[in-house]
Amino acid sequence: MWGMNLNRNLDISLKRQIYQNLRDQMLAGTLKAGDPLPSTRELAKALSVSRNTVNEAYEMLIVEGYAESRQGAPTRVAEGLILNRERNDAAGTRREPEAAPLILADFKTGQPDLRLFPRYVWQRAFQKALSGMPADLLGYTGPQGLLELRQEIASWLMRSKGIAVDAGDIFITAGATQALHLVSDLLYAEHQFMLVEDPCNIEMIQTFIRKGYTVVPVPVDAQGIRTETLCKGQPGPVYVTPSHQFPLGGILPASRRTALIRFARSCGSYIVEDDYDSEFRYYGEPASPLYAMAPERVIYIGTFSKVLFPALRIGYVIVPRELQKRWRRLRTYTDVQNPPFEQAALAEFLRTRTFDRHITKMRKIYKQRRQILLDSLGDCFGDGWRPWGDAAGLHLAVEFDGMVFNDAFRDDARRNGIRIAPVEHHCLRKGEHHNKLLLGYGHLEPEDIRSGIYRLREFMKQAKDS
Amino acid sequence: MWGMNLNRNLDISLKRQIYQNLRDQMLAGTLKAGDPLPSTRELAKALSVSRNTVNEAYEMLIVEGYAESRQGAPTRVAEGLILNRERNDAAGTRREPEAAPLILADFKTGQPDLRLFPRYVWQRAFQKALSGMPADLLGYTGPQGLLELRQEIASWLMRSKGIAVDAGDIFITAGATQALHLVSDLLYAEHQFMLVEDPCNIEMIQTFIRKGYTVVPVPVDAQGIRTETLCKGQPGPVYVTPSHQFPLGGILPASRRTALIRFARSCGSYIVEDDYDSEFRYYGEPASPLYAMAPERVIYIGTFSKVLFPALRIGYVIVPRELQKRWRRLRTYTDVQNPPFEQAALAEFLRTRTFDRHITKMRKIYKQRRQILLDSLGDCFGDGWRPWGDAAGLHLAVEFDGMVFNDAFRDDARRNGIRIAPVEHHCLRKGEHHNKLLLGYGHLEPEDIRSGIYRLREFMKQAKDS
Repeated sequence: MWGMNLNRNLDISLKRQIYQNLRDQMLAGTLKAGDPLPSTRELAKALSVSRNTVNEAYEMLIVEGYAESRQGAPTRVAEGLILNRERNDAAGTRREPEAAPLILADFKTGQPDLRLFPRYVWQRAFQKALSGMPADLLGYTGPQGLLELRQEIASWLMRSKGIAVDAGDIFITAGATQALHLVSDLLYAEHQFMLVEDPCNIEMIQTFIRKGYTVVPVPVDAQGIRTETLCKGQPGPVYVTPSHQFPLGGILPASRRTALIRFARSCGSYIVEDDYDSEFRYYGEPASPLYAMAPERVIYIGTFSKVLFPALRIGYVIVPRELQKRWRRLRTYTDVQNPPFEQAALAEFLRTRTFDRHITKMRKIYKQRRQILLDSLGDCFGDGWRPWGDAAGLHLAVEFDGMVFNDAFRDDARRNGIRIAPVEHHCLRKGEHHNKLLLGYGHLEPEDIRSGIYRLREFMKQAKDS
Repeated sequence: MWGMNLNRNLDISLKRQIYQNLRDQMLAGTLKAGDPLPSTRELAKALSVSRNTVNEAYEMLIVEGYAESRQGAPTRVAEGLILNRERNDAAGTRREPEAAPLILADFKTGQPDLRLFPRYVWQRAFQKALSGMPADLLGYTGPQGLLELRQEIASWLMRSKGIAVDAGDIFITAGATQALHLVSDLLYAEHQFMLVEDPCNIEMIQTFIRKGYTVVPVPVDAQGIRTETLCKGQPGPVYVTPSHQFPLGGILPASRRTALIRFARSCGSYIVEDDYDSEFRYYGEPASPLYAMAPERVIYIGTFSKVLFPALRIGYVIVPRELQKRWRRLRTYTDVQNPPFEQAALAEFLRTRTFDRHITKMRKIYKQRRQILLDSLGDCFGDGWRPWGDAAGLHLAVEFDGMVFNDAFRDDARRNGIRIAPVEHHCLRKGEHHNKLLLGYGHLEPEDIRSGIYRLREFMKQAKDS
């Protein structure tokens, strides 16, 4: 009847089913402008539903303008409704992702060991934060982030890196990626250069490229960015990782730090300091941030992704005061603010020093893993390799004699169950670092490191022979 | 001794105090390039600390390149360190915010009643989500969002609005603002027009303006966007609120919906449908989304900010398939993904239908408050006013005879304890709606509504007289 089959087993109400059916017929032109709809009594009987149900369906059609009713006259189909189906060959074809080969040796970088995260303590901090949260924190509280978290971060920066930061200069972000996205907006001007380390984290650089910057690569050596090659003809912000250069691992020496700051001052621009993993230094203290030397010239980006876990999505930025007003506006129009729960839980985690204890514990474990990696490399490759950079972080850059690592090598390794990135992958100017690989080890158990390096050696032998 | 005062009551270690003090002297030039540092024995004695403490401080200076040591020779200050203080008059001046006047009648829009949110049930959902969460969700899980949440949203869209959406077409965002920010990026091309309702939510439009669109205002009447004024000479995406026009409140009639879709098809562009509060309709069912009529042409934005609470920062977008690949990339480079906890808790909230019950409860309460608002307006303003739009949402647009509401009125009201927005504030072309005010009522208790309207009347009288 009326081309309608009602299904009483659906989660969707009968009135809505009637409404949708009639609507679809109107849009398709089966019911034409001016056509009368059946009386509610008639349709209710035909469909074995209550008259009220049909009344409500008609009401929906009338309110949304599909049908018109005039007193005493039958409800009729409104004008101008026909909408043919659009041919769209692109739609509807969604390819299944190819089955990825099994990974037997996983040297991906930037990955903390999630199994060792103190889940139970975190849950308790979270619960405490949830139950103690005042109702107004459920509303909008502004783009800067929870005050108590910013105060705890300031205190952490003081006790771990010895820098005095006012909580009012700290801005919480949804992780370091968002921080860079916002910084990229903040510093943008037309035809603006962005000076970046080469090699660098190539994913992060995409943010600048997408924004429209002309990215200028500045070479890196074992100590970090080669400041003597900075050129005043290409002025602009400089994006650096001075505490532990990604990917090569150097700690930027003091004289280059001062040179960098002088450069920024001379061209009136800023330094973007990405401190992605300096908490994990295995000999000595974490390096002191550039920020401490020139707070008015440095935008400092910190993150909790490596120390706690990536899905936390909390980072922070220390913003020079003359940029803070613009930062607030930018964040407001980007996504307003972080949710409050993780922020309050993290504040509690910092306040109770659970955070500090977790870092101390993980530093020991990562240090051991790093040593196991170095030992395994020695066992498998003899004298044919050299490590780069400082004893820090969750990955190691390794140079191998007489090797050329490129995208083909990476893909081939992947097919052989090894996930590993050549340093070349992160190079803007190709050909300078083709004999180096990046080995992420933070997330690997000792046995996985050993078997992984063994597997890598077998694969490299085979790749050389073929 | 050596200009150093160690403070044993600080949270910062003695070795770091020594390191910082010497570093600062080097940067200031008090200690010059080539100057020898005191022997560790000598300094340890002078400062009454262990020799090991001084050793560690020197080690930090050496590793970071502030000092150089050669075997048998004293440790010396490195070259090229002097860094004068930069004069920066803008820095350091941070003004205290002006004391805001007390708000006695708060008609701000888009504000749910946070006191009525079922905190305890939410906490339990959160705790369940926390304790049941597999460890791999602590790592990166991709830009689309938690599958179980997307499935629950699909099921909710089916039972509440009768639309069938594949969970694979739903993308979780950090709220509707971020959704619009991403959409703005997604659809951008140079010299691109963006067609928007006028009036519209002026804050949301900022996102398009900041991105670089040429924003084209399209007039709105009591039913919504006037599609007959759309002009093919200015093709581009159209940003609309068809379920409950913001701010005027119309539900877009079916014939205009089809016209809108025909327009988008004819110029090969998209419709951005912002469904910010359609869950709250007080007579009849929520309006059916435009999306249901042309899934290949409509980008649908949904949010939980109004139904649950703004700080949740979860929204979602239904993305046409041919745009999904680009969406994934965009989100990845913007902030990667949402944190998993809120997503899992919300999925649980939806699964158990706590969500549906909360909406039912709030719909009743908001409906009562709306009626109280209408009654109070009648009591205070007699025949001199008319409500606009459909009985829906958390605010009401009201036209007052013979009034002109502008920014001056708003500021003056604010000084008199009344927070209220003229519709003109949200107009791109000024002068069409100067006799209308927006009254947000969702968050107000009946008594606050009554006393607020009374206060508004008194203020308007006084404003008219002066």
